[in-house]
Amino acid sequence: MNLDLKTIGEFGLIERLKQEAIVVPDRVVMGIGDDAAVLKGEGGYLTLASTDMLVEDIHFTLATATAREIGYKTMAVNVSDIAAMGGIPEQALISLGLRPEQTVAFVDELYAGLRECGRLFGVNIIGGDTVSSPRAMVINLAILGRVEEDACLYRSGARPGDILLVTGNLGAAAAGLDTLLDPRPATAAALTFARRRHFRPTPRVAEIRAAVAAGGITAADDISDGLVAEIYTIARASGVGIILEAAALPIDPATRELAALYQKDPLDYALYGGEDFELLLSCRPERVTAVQKAVAACCTTPVTRIGSVVPAAEGIAIVRAGKKLPLHPGGYNHFQRQ
Amino acid sequence: MNLDLKTIGEFGLIERLKQEAIVVPDRVVMGIGDDAAVLKGEGGYLTLASTDMLVEDIHFTLATATAREIGYKTMAVNVSDIAAMGGIPEQALISLGLRPEQTVAFVDELYAGLRECGRLFGVNIIGGDTVSSPRAMVINLAILGRVEEDACLYRSGARPGDILLVTGNLGAAAAGLDTLLDPRPATAAALTFARRRHFRPTPRVAEIRAAVAAGGITAADDISDGLVAEIYTIARASGVGIILEAAALPIDPATRELAALYQKDPLDYALYGGEDFELLLSCRPERVTAVQKAVAACCTTPVTRIGSVVPAAEGIAIVRAGKKLPLHPGGYNHFQRQ
Repeated sequence: MNLDLKTIGEFGLIERLKQEAIVVPDRVVMGIGDDAAVLKGEGGYLTLASTDMLVEDIHFTLATATAREIGYKTMAVNVSDIAAMGGIPEQALISLGLRPEQTVAFVDELYAGLRECGRLFGVNIIGGDTVSSPRAMVINLAILGRVEEDACLYRSGARPGDILLVTGNLGAAAAGLDTLLDPRPATAAALTFARRRHFRPTPRVAEIRAAVAAGGITAADDISDGLVAEIYTIARASGVGIILEAAALPIDPATRELAALYQKDPLDYALYGGEDFELLLSCRPERVTAVQKAVAACCTTPVTRIGSVVPAAEGIAIVRAGKKLPLHPGGYNHFQRQ
Repeated sequence: MNLDLKTIGEFGLIERLKQEAIVVPDRVVMGIGDDAAVLKGEGGYLTLASTDMLVEDIHFTLATATAREIGYKTMAVNVSDIAAMGGIPEQALISLGLRPEQTVAFVDELYAGLRECGRLFGVNIIGGDTVSSPRAMVINLAILGRVEEDACLYRSGARPGDILLVTGNLGAAAAGLDTLLDPRPATAAALTFARRRHFRPTPRVAEIRAAVAAGGITAADDISDGLVAEIYTIARASGVGIILEAAALPIDPATRELAALYQKDPLDYALYGGEDFELLLSCRPERVTAVQKAVAACCTTPVTRIGSVVPAAEGIAIVRAGKKLPLHPGGYNHFQRQ
C-alpha cells in the first residue's frame, strides 16, 4: 500500500475511487467514469453533473493569464463536459480558494469571465464557497445540465464500423501554451488565434446538439487531455480498436505556423496537445454526411473524418504516409507529468 | 477598486458575486445566499445544491487530522448544508487537489471517510476530479439533495414572536480544536468527545426532517461559523432582531471541563466557536414542544430554546445574569482571520 500517486496515475486512482461509491442506486444511471455523472431526471430528461478543479501554477499561471481568462476557461471546460454527454449546461456552483492578498478587482474580473462564458451557454451561477488558500489560488466548478433520455452520449458506445469524427481543429491550444511559456515573434494573427484557443476554448454544445439530432452518433468525449488520450479512453470504454488517419487531422494554418516557429511537428500538437475542448465522436458511417451538414448549418464548425472504429483485436494505430504505426498513449496525466 | 479581500470580507464578497449570476431564471428558486441553492425539481420536490472547499492548513492540518477524518468531515459539512434547508442529501461530486507525493493509501483512507459519512446519510459519490496541487492539498465537495416544495427552509423565514432553538450542544468543536493545537492533559472522555465533535460532526438530517414534520419551523441555518455569526445571518436575512439567553445555551460538561483547562469562558466556545454543525432554528411558539418531542422521539437529540426573535428595531442582544448586552459579531470570516 505504499504506492504513490505517480505510480498508479490518474486513471488507476479513478478505478479505486469508483469502489463502493454508490449507496443508493435508484436514481444513478452512471456514476464515476464518464465526462459527467448521469442521474434520472424529469419529463424525459436525465440530469448531468460534473466538476473540474483548476490549481494555480498547474492549470494556469497569473504570469500569463488574466483573471478574466481564468474565469472564462473554468466555465468553458465544465460546459465542455456537459457537451461531451450530448447535453445542455444549466447551473454552476463555484468554489474559490483565494490568497488573502488578492484584490477584489481580481475576483470581480474572474467572475466577469465566468459570467461571460456562462451567459453564452445559458449557465447560471447558483452558489459557491469562498475560502482562504494562502499558498495557491484554486477554483472549482461543479456544473449541472440535462439531456433527453434517448440523446445521452457515453464514451462506451463506439462500435466497429463507426467513423471517428472531430469538431473544429486540433493542436491550437498547445501552440498557444508554447507562445505563453516561451514568447517568440510570430504574426499577430497566429498569436491572437492561439492565445484565444488556449484561454477561451469554445465548448461544442450547439454542435453536439445538432449532431445528435442528425442521428448516428454513438459515442462522444471532449478533448481535454489530448486526442490520443481521448482515443484510448473511448477505445477502452467501448471495447474497440481505433485507426487514426494522420493526414486527415484538421490543423489550422496558424497552428502550423507556430509549430514551425517552435520547431515542433504540428502532428504532435494535434495528437498530444490537449485542452482543445473539441469533441471526438464516433458515428455510424451512413450518417456522417448528415451530421457534417447539420453541424455546418447550425454553427459553421467543420466536422472532420479522422479515422475509423475497428474490432479491439486490431488495436489502436495511426496511418501515416501509408504506414500503419502503433499509437502510444501520451496525453496529460495529472500525477505523472508534474 | 484596490479593495482587498480582507477589507470587504467574505460576506461583502458574496454580495458582489451575486450580481448578474442568473441568466436563465426559469428553474432557479434561490441562487447564491443561503446554505444551498434551490432549483425547481420533479414530483413535488425541489433540488438543492451546495459546495464547500477545504484547504490544507486552513480547514485541516495533516499534523492533527487523519485522512479518514478529513474525508468524513468534508462529507459531513456538505450534508449539513442540505440539512439546513430541511432536505435529504443524495449525490456528491468530489474534487481532490493532491500533492504528487501523497500516497494511494492516503487517498484510500480519505475516501473511506467520505464513504463512511456518505453511507450514513445515503449520499452517493457520483463523480469528481483529481488533479495535482503541489503546495497544499485541497478537497472540494459539491452536493445535491432534495426537499418537498412546502418543506424548504430559508434563513429568511424568521418572524418576531418565533422562538430560537438549537439542536444538540454548542462549543465542543472549538474545544476540540484547542486540544489539537495545544494538547494538555484532560480526561480521556473529554478528549475523545471533543476530538470527535471536531472531526466527526453529525449533520442533523433526521432531526430537521422530524422537526419540519412536526410543523412550525420558520427558518434554519447550520452553525459552521459560530452561533453568533449564524444569528446575524438569520437576523439579516429575515429582517428581524434576536435576543439570546446566555444561561440557556446547551454546553456539554466535557466542553466545560476543557474550557476550564484552557482558561476560557465556555460561553465563548458556544457563541463564537464554530464548526459545531448543529442547526439553529426559529419556530412558532405554539409548536416548540411538538418539535422538541418529535426530534427526541426520532433521534434522542435535545432541541433547546435559546432565545427569541424580535422586531429588527430591538437589535441583536444577549441576556446574561439578568442584563441585556449587545451581541457583537465575531464568528469565523475566511478573509479576516487568516
